[in-house]
Amino acid sequence: MKQANTQAPSGNSEAQSPAGFFPLDRFNAFSDGVLAIVITLLVLELPVPPADAPVLPLFSENWVDFLGYFISFAFVGGIWLSHASLTKGMKRGDTVTLRLNLALLLFVALLPYSTHLMVLHMTGQDARAAVAIYGLNLFMAGLLLTVLLSHVARDRRLVVDDLADDRISSAFRQRRMYLAVNAVAVIVGLLAPLVAVGAYVLLSVAFIIQPLIGIWRKH
Amino acid sequence: MKQANTQAPSGNSEAQSPAGFFPLDRFNAFSDGVLAIVITLLVLELPVPPADAPVLPLFSENWVDFLGYFISFAFVGGIWLSHASLTKGMKRGDTVTLRLNLALLLFVALLPYSTHLMVLHMTGQDARAAVAIYGLNLFMAGLLLTVLLSHVARDRRLVVDDLADDRISSAFRQRRMYLAVNAVAVIVGLLAPLVAVGAYVLLSVAFIIQPLIGIWRKH
Amino acid sequence: MKQANTQAPSGNSEAQSPAGFFPLDRFNAFSDGVLAIVITLLVLELPVPPADAPVLPLFSENWVDFLGYFISFAFVGGIWLSHASLTKGMKRGDTVTLRLNLALLLFVALLPYSTHLMVLHMTGQDARAAVAIYGLNLFMAGLLLTVLLSHVARDRRLVVDDLADDRISSAFRQRRMYLAVNAVAVIVGLLAPLVAVGAYVLLSVAFIIQPLIGIWRKH
Amino acid sequence: MKQANTQAPSGNSEAQSPAGFFPLDRFNAFSDGVLAIVITLLVLELPVPPADAPVLPLFSENWVDFLGYFISFAFVGGIWLSHASLTKGMKRGDTVTLRLNLALLLFVALLPYSTHLMVLHMTGQDARAAVAIYGLNLFMAGLLLTVLLSHVARDRRLVVDDLADDRISSAFRQRRMYLAVNAVAVIVGLLAPLVAVGAYVLLSVAFIIQPLIGIWRKH
Repeated sequence: MKQANTQAPSGNSEAQSPAGFFPLDRFNAFSDGVLAIVITLLVLELPVPPADAPVLPLFSENWVDFLGYFISFAFVGGIWLSHASLTKGMKRGDTVTLRLNLALLLFVALLPYSTHLMVLHMTGQDARAAVAIYGLNLFMAGLLLTVLLSHVARDRRLVVDDLADDRISSAFRQRRMYLAVNAVAVIVGLLAPLVAVGAYVLLSVAFIIQPLIGIWRKH
Repeated sequence: MKQANTQAPSGNSEAQSPAGFFPLDRFNAFSDGVLAIVITLLVLELPVPPADAPVLPLFSENWVDFLGYFISFAFVGGIWLSHASLTKGMKRGDTVTLRLNLALLLFVALLPYSTHLMVLHMTGQDARAAVAIYGLNLFMAGLLLTVLLSHVARDRRLVVDDLADDRISSAFRQRRMYLAVNAVAVIVGLLAPLVAVGAYVLLSVAFIIQPLIGIWRKH
Repeated sequence: MKQANTQAPSGNSEAQSPAGFFPLDRFNAFSDGVLAIVITLLVLELPVPPADAPVLPLFSENWVDFLGYFISFAFVGGIWLSHASLTKGMKRGDTVTLRLNLALLLFVALLPYSTHLMVLHMTGQDARAAVAIYGLNLFMAGLLLTVLLSHVARDRRLVVDDLADDRISSAFRQRRMYLAVNAVAVIVGLLAPLVAVGAYVLLSVAFIIQPLIGIWRKH
Repeated sequence: MKQANTQAPSGNSEAQSPAGFFPLDRFNAFSDGVLAIVITLLVLELPVPPADAPVLPLFSENWVDFLGYFISFAFVGGIWLSHASLTKGMKRGDTVTLRLNLALLLFVALLPYSTHLMVLHMTGQDARAAVAIYGLNLFMAGLLLTVLLSHVARDRRLVVDDLADDRISSAFRQRRMYLAVNAVAVIVGLLAPLVAVGAYVLLSVAFIIQPLIGIWRKH
């Protein structure tokens, strides 16, 4: 026998989200939307060779653009993965959660811009500034993700009931390590920009391509 | 006692959304989509210095563009937060809700345009018109959010069963205050455009950066 | 006592969506995504007066652009509303549903293009072709929505169990009327393009602004 | 017997998604977002005839652009359909699933770029390279979809409990056939690019238009 249940579909109920708290559905949908758009906008920066030019020098002449696409795709993807890991341990948000998340997305949404800046100046005379700004953008996004985690972890009303403490500590450890690597990359970018870019490439390869190698080996 | 319900995943049932009413899932998803795209499109207006120009004058020369990005990100984020607060108290929508929401989104989707207009003319001779149009755009979005709230609050079939009356009154009070501030900003924009922009910056900082300071202090 | 329920969160179960059928969550999310992007891309066509030009002739010189924005926003919004009405009566989709939906979205995604075409040529010598192509685009989207409705209504496994037959008939009647109006508009567009545009404006005003007037009166 | 569950709306619970696993909601939302944006960005490549030029040569002069729009819309739509079929059989993902999915989306998000490349060079002297790169892009997306299927199918903790083995085998068979056709198209593209494009058109027509013919006949 089916009982009428007028509230389940919308997932809204004062009991589930008391005053000042928000269900996660729109928090997730909005964040997924912004992250999906940011990651897809990156392709707009790739230059198409004009109709009367040969096609193949594409990769040799524009390798920096493809590199930028690859790196930023990997980092935005990584931010999405961290964000999804964070909300997996949450059962609701409060107003501060939502506003901190907007501050995070403000820096994430800047990434197509700073990618374009880095790519355009990477082989020029002002590469240091461009690569450092890119690194700073990544660092700020990473920092705000940490602040968000910190805010959520401190309030038991926001996290799922059965979340183990060691999972929170492990998340903090990962985030601190990521931020440290990021801070070093900003400094390296100021001294030797191409080394910093090389580090971004290695991290991106590790993130995107390494699981593929794992799959390959199992066969 | 609740019984297994094979239709719950799709959230669709005549019992749950009688004729003329709509479940909130698509209402929310569409609104989140539009708001996420609008907030992310803002970055497309930021100018990248050409390859042969130095990078660092970026912020001194293009500070208005970054200011516009910041303000509009904060205001669209604020509209999203108000919209999420509104639907948190709803259990379904009707056709009028959906059409009023489209009217709201029509003005929200104009914000990247009016931001660009304001930024381009803010330091020029026609700054008054540009800043006032931006303020009017914000005001119209705020007004339609209020109209939407007003429509929903009047119909008990749309709001969740346990929504307290004083939460509705408090929402109306907030919205009226926001509209009054907005109306004043439009008039100030016509007289002293940079003062209006300064007010937008203050409001944006309060919205985005203030929760960060709160977090900082708790440490 | 809470029972483990490993399948509910993903909403996936063979029992709920037998082979060849699909739950509606991704169908809706993808459609909402495309419709939200299409409706938001329209703003990219609006021309911003250059920094050294006055701002205010904006509306007198570019009124066709704003008109196009308004009309297409209203029509895409209307398509979204019809689509949401359709899926409200569905409990799942099959492969044909999903492919018909892609054909529908193919024409919906063309609307920013045909809007731009109409707006650019509306006051020129080739207005007839431009306005008729716009009308044809609207007609094709409307036709595919009708085909989709027709496919779904014929298969009892796709619609919710308690959907009344007269709601289906009423939906068909509405869709046929809409298609007839659309077909007439295409022909009128070929003979007197501005009359067709006028009709689009009237329909858009009725759709977006009329509920606002209703709200106003109730106060 | 299922008891009331206050956490269901957010779909988050350690019991439902143990450490290292992820609920599918954000996986689906992010993928739907990227795919919806990619499919909608395709329209930005279509050229609008300038205001003083006649409208109608549009289709005769720019037929390659419309062809590219149609083909890529169909293929991205097909990737979406395959992706939705895959997640229909899943109950959760793990970190590798999410990272493989990002690798898949990296190639999907490149499709507007390679479509533009193909369309611009299809009638030029370097058509072979352009068409082969397009085919390679499709092949890589198809390959990663197969890798993703292969990863998920191997881990019983990821698939829904009642998924029949023959449905998995049938999915693998379909994917292998698709990849084989794709590989042949890349080689044909290198030898006779227009033949490869012709094959893409046929496949797209079969995918998008054939269900329409099926509907027509039933009437």
